[in-house]
Amino acid sequence: MKNTRLSGLLLFLVIVITVQLQHGLQASRSATQNQSENLGAARADVEEGIKHLLVAQVEAWNRGDLEGFMAGYWHSPDLTFFSGANVSNGWQAALDRYKNRYQGTGKEMGHLEFQDLKINLLSRQAAVVTGKWELTMSDGKKPHGLFTLILRKMQDGWRIVHDHTSSVEEK
Amino acid sequence: MKNTRLSGLLLFLVIVITVQLQHGLQASRSATQNQSENLGAARADVEEGIKHLLVAQVEAWNRGDLEGFMAGYWHSPDLTFFSGANVSNGWQAALDRYKNRYQGTGKEMGHLEFQDLKINLLSRQAAVVTGKWELTMSDGKKPHGLFTLILRKMQDGWRIVHDHTSSVEEK
Repeated sequence: MKNTRLSGLLLFLVIVITVQLQHGLQASRSATQNQSENLGAARADVEEGIKHLLVAQVEAWNRGDLEGFMAGYWHSPDLTFFSGANVSNGWQAALDRYKNRYQGTGKEMGHLEFQDLKINLLSRQAAVVTGKWELTMSDGKKPHGLFTLILRKMQDGWRIVHDHTSSVEEK
Repeated sequence: MKNTRLSGLLLFLVIVITVQLQHGLQASRSATQNQSENLGAARADVEEGIKHLLVAQVEAWNRGDLEGFMAGYWHSPDLTFFSGANVSNGWQAALDRYKNRYQGTGKEMGHLEFQDLKINLLSRQAAVVTGKWELTMSDGKKPHGLFTLILRKMQDGWRIVHDHTSSVEEK
C-alpha cells in the first residue's frame, strides 16, 4: 500500500514536471518565433512613429524652428550628414550648417514638403526612409531633391542617425 | 516488490524526462541568446563579404565592365537608385543610366576609387555602407561625391538594394 502511494505520487510528479517543463519549452520556443511575428505586428506602429517624427520635422521647418527640425536627429557627435559632396559629423555641425544656409541676412527657409515617403523597417531597431523634398521659396523657385535617412531606435524613441540629401547635380 | 519496481521505473522516468526537457529548454533559451551573440561573431565575416563586393565593383568599373559593376546590385525591378534629384527604379534602368552616362561616343568611365568606407551592420540581413567616390578622368578632372548604400542579404549573398549617390550640388 505504501509503495502504491509512492507510485501514485511519482506518477503525479511525472505529470506535473512534464507539463511544467513542456510549458516552459513551448514558451521559450514561442518567444523565439514571436521575434519575427512581433516585428510584423509592430511594423505598423513603428511606421506611424517614424511618420510622426517626419511630420513634426516638416512642421518645425515651416514655422522657422530649426532646433525643432533638428529634434528628429540623433543628438550625438556620431550623427552623419551627407549633402551633395559635403560630409558633416555631429548634431551641432548639422544645425550650424542649416543655420548658415537658410537663416541670416538675405536667406529664407522656404516652405518644405516631403513626397513619396517609403519607410522600410530593417529590424526592430533600424529603419531606412527614402523620399523627395521640395522647398517653395518666396520668389516661386522650387529647389528639390532626394533623401535617404537611416533611423535607429534610441531609449527616447526613433532618431535619424544618418542623412543623405541631394539635389540637382552639377553637370 | 512489484510496486517497488514500478516506483523505481517511475523515478527513472521522472529523471529521464526532466533531464531531456531541461536540456531542450536550455537549448531553446540558448538559441535565443545566441541570436545577438552570433551577430557580433558574424559581424567581421559580413563586413569582409561586403568589402569584397565593393572591391569587386571597383575592379569591374576600372576594366570598363559595367555589367560586372552591376553584379553587386539586387537584380530586381525593386532596386532603387537615387542620384542627385533623379530616381531610377530597377536593375536594368540603373545599368542603362550608367551606360548612357559613361559609355558611348565621347564618354569615358574614368578610374574609380572609394574612400572612407563605413560598414554598419543593422541586423543579420541588413547593412548600410557609406563612403566617398572619386573618378579620375583622362583630362585630370576628378568628379567626386558621396554614397549611402543599403544592402540586404539575399539567398546568393549580399546585394545593394538602394543606392543614394551625390556629387557637388548646384548652387
